[in-house]
Amino acid sequence: MKATIITIGDEILYGQTVDTNSAWIGTQLNLMGIEVLETYSISDEREHILETVDRALSRSQVVFVTGGLGPTNDDITKNTLAEYFKSELIYDPEVYEDVQALFHRRGLELLERNKQQAWVPEACTVIRNANGTAPGMWFESHGRVVVSMPGVPLEMKAMVTDFVLPKLREKYELPLIEHRFIMTAGVGESRIAEKLIDFEDNLPAGIGMAYLPSHGYVKLRLTARGDDRAEMKARLDKLQEDLYKRLGDWIYGVGRDLTLEKALGDLLVTHGLSMGTAESCTGGYIGHRVTTIPGSSAWFKGGIISYDNQVKEQQLGVSSSTLAQYGAVSEETVREMLTGLFEQLPVEVGIAVSGVAGPDGGTPEKPVGTVWVAYGQAADIRTKKLQLHKKRLLNIELTATLGLNLLRRYLLETFEKRS
Amino acid sequence: MKATIITIGDEILYGQTVDTNSAWIGTQLNLMGIEVLETYSISDEREHILETVDRALSRSQVVFVTGGLGPTNDDITKNTLAEYFKSELIYDPEVYEDVQALFHRRGLELLERNKQQAWVPEACTVIRNANGTAPGMWFESHGRVVVSMPGVPLEMKAMVTDFVLPKLREKYELPLIEHRFIMTAGVGESRIAEKLIDFEDNLPAGIGMAYLPSHGYVKLRLTARGDDRAEMKARLDKLQEDLYKRLGDWIYGVGRDLTLEKALGDLLVTHGLSMGTAESCTGGYIGHRVTTIPGSSAWFKGGIISYDNQVKEQQLGVSSSTLAQYGAVSEETVREMLTGLFEQLPVEVGIAVSGVAGPDGGTPEKPVGTVWVAYGQAADIRTKKLQLHKKRLLNIELTATLGLNLLRRYLLETFEKRS
Repeated sequence: MKATIITIGDEILYGQTVDTNSAWIGTQLNLMGIEVLETYSISDEREHILETVDRALSRSQVVFVTGGLGPTNDDITKNTLAEYFKSELIYDPEVYEDVQALFHRRGLELLERNKQQAWVPEACTVIRNANGTAPGMWFESHGRVVVSMPGVPLEMKAMVTDFVLPKLREKYELPLIEHRFIMTAGVGESRIAEKLIDFEDNLPAGIGMAYLPSHGYVKLRLTARGDDRAEMKARLDKLQEDLYKRLGDWIYGVGRDLTLEKALGDLLVTHGLSMGTAESCTGGYIGHRVTTIPGSSAWFKGGIISYDNQVKEQQLGVSSSTLAQYGAVSEETVREMLTGLFEQLPVEVGIAVSGVAGPDGGTPEKPVGTVWVAYGQAADIRTKKLQLHKKRLLNIELTATLGLNLLRRYLLETFEKRS
Repeated sequence: MKATIITIGDEILYGQTVDTNSAWIGTQLNLMGIEVLETYSISDEREHILETVDRALSRSQVVFVTGGLGPTNDDITKNTLAEYFKSELIYDPEVYEDVQALFHRRGLELLERNKQQAWVPEACTVIRNANGTAPGMWFESHGRVVVSMPGVPLEMKAMVTDFVLPKLREKYELPLIEHRFIMTAGVGESRIAEKLIDFEDNLPAGIGMAYLPSHGYVKLRLTARGDDRAEMKARLDKLQEDLYKRLGDWIYGVGRDLTLEKALGDLLVTHGLSMGTAESCTGGYIGHRVTTIPGSSAWFKGGIISYDNQVKEQQLGVSSSTLAQYGAVSEETVREMLTGLFEQLPVEVGIAVSGVAGPDGGTPEKPVGTVWVAYGQAADIRTKKLQLHKKRLLNIELTATLGLNLLRRYLLETFEKRS
């Protein structure tokens, strides 16, 4: 089964907006076994829309259209699709109530042009919009489907999840597919592949595996196809267990949306520990990363951003002779930074980092991308040197990911094995 | 003049990669007066590529193709375009040298499949790749152009900037267009529009203006069309001056890539000042934002991430009675946080923030999105309450942007006007 995604709106063609909707829809469809044949971004012109929808319908069974449903004059998707399906607009009192309720909640006055949103093509099934005023539309014709939704990601995603995917499952006999995402951090794709040579060679029929690498991470996606979901899940459970045996604590968890920060936080909660940070080259980014997790105040107490050496000395007690002798980017300095953090903050575990983020500041001995990390507890401080890249933002990002991962593996080694 | 952008590769259709190349190319073309008619993402299948290139060429003068140029077997763009233009592959010694040099620089061994990259269609002009092994290709046919480039953004962007855009300017008579981006922060689109009613009504012929809003920011883009670039620039200078008169310090600078952080840093350097941060709800994100700027160590010393109240008390000297009486999210607390920061860190100016980022932790008096900001100098601390949104990451981002902007306006008011 094939699908096409069409995005309508000049702002994407002008490059003002990056089209993230297509990738999101593509992921959802891929996960349920529908292949995306192609995606288009087109302008909001009647002819262009008619022609593109027609072309897409001739090549795929399901066509997703996003955008062009707002209340202004250049939003013509609804009228154009009504024309395409030779359908009149009719007044839908339920949609009117939705729109009215939304304006009421936001304390805004309902304008004439918003009332227009209650007029919908007679030929469609309305997809109600819980997060905005423009309803979505589901059209069927000759066994094929066109779904039109607003371009606002929040509104579109809710419609896809709550209405479109269930209805597609109902309408079409889709292959049964079950995915399992095994999440690893801190180890490259090739080192993982080395450990999995015979695992991959011996993958049972109906099971596939893919490596999905990104900066500092590799996701392993196991995919089972079959006709008995419980049996497929059981097979994936077994393979997951096998992967844990082979990769051990390289794996930080299971589940495609599980972040390293969340996994670390869960570990800290389990063992009743709290953490803090002493950051130089990352300038607060590690603190930011962990505090993106709701409820992180349960296990993150805070930190010292010691960007300047004076702050390293005064706030963290790094000795001026250490800084003079070994430099700010050194094992000795990060060790003293972390020691100072434990003296200052009420935390049991922590991370300290200092490095040359770039683009300037490198030397032959410590080129751009040299980073020292200290992690552990006051009585057991470990250190590691990282040799990263030339790009500032990438170095900041990788330092945070690899630093948090070192702390996670330390916790596993120290607290899980002895208990 | 019209262009079409085609992105080749399954990883975009699967949703594994978000297509940012199209938006970037769209922006570049739009800035030089070329309209993007449509963009496609398609799979790397021969037929699909042939058909899509043909369709694109029938509708636009310039076709950009990215992706599918790597050294593996599923990278078929080069052979397919050679077929489309009925051209043989020939060996290009210059490309071979480029590939060899790159492998040498990276200390890697040249494999047979990499040597294949030196074979290019006879019909094309080679675009040399300074950042990777796959050369780009420029094809011309009946006055129309097809440009094929690698999908790696860094490699593609360098080719577009250094080769493709200059060559397009040479080949086609493009309209003269001059843009000017006036950057504002902290004020909504409608408040700006109110101040610009008669400015917009009286825009001279040949000048257009657009509002480009994003979280916490509005960019104003002035566009001049004409036939004398110097005269167009002079007209934009005059309009820019007029905008400064009307909007004053709502404007943080001029130039589409100028960030608020950079503008703030420049101000601090000008006045020989350094800054620090005391962050609660943003968890280090403000420190991160300013340290994304290369050279920020000249003006950013560091900060205290006082996520927990204990850290607010012990590191920043916030009194327990203040916390008990007014709460962590209060004017009194952020004022004491900033006072404490000035006592601890060797900085002249600073920001302190404390708020309810969400999704939980709101109360009827202090709902999610309530944030207090303190900013200024030790002897002159100002405060402001922000009422933001329901979403955690958005609240963190907006707190940083609006907080940094308050400090910037404070510096202008305090240091520029008196000097």
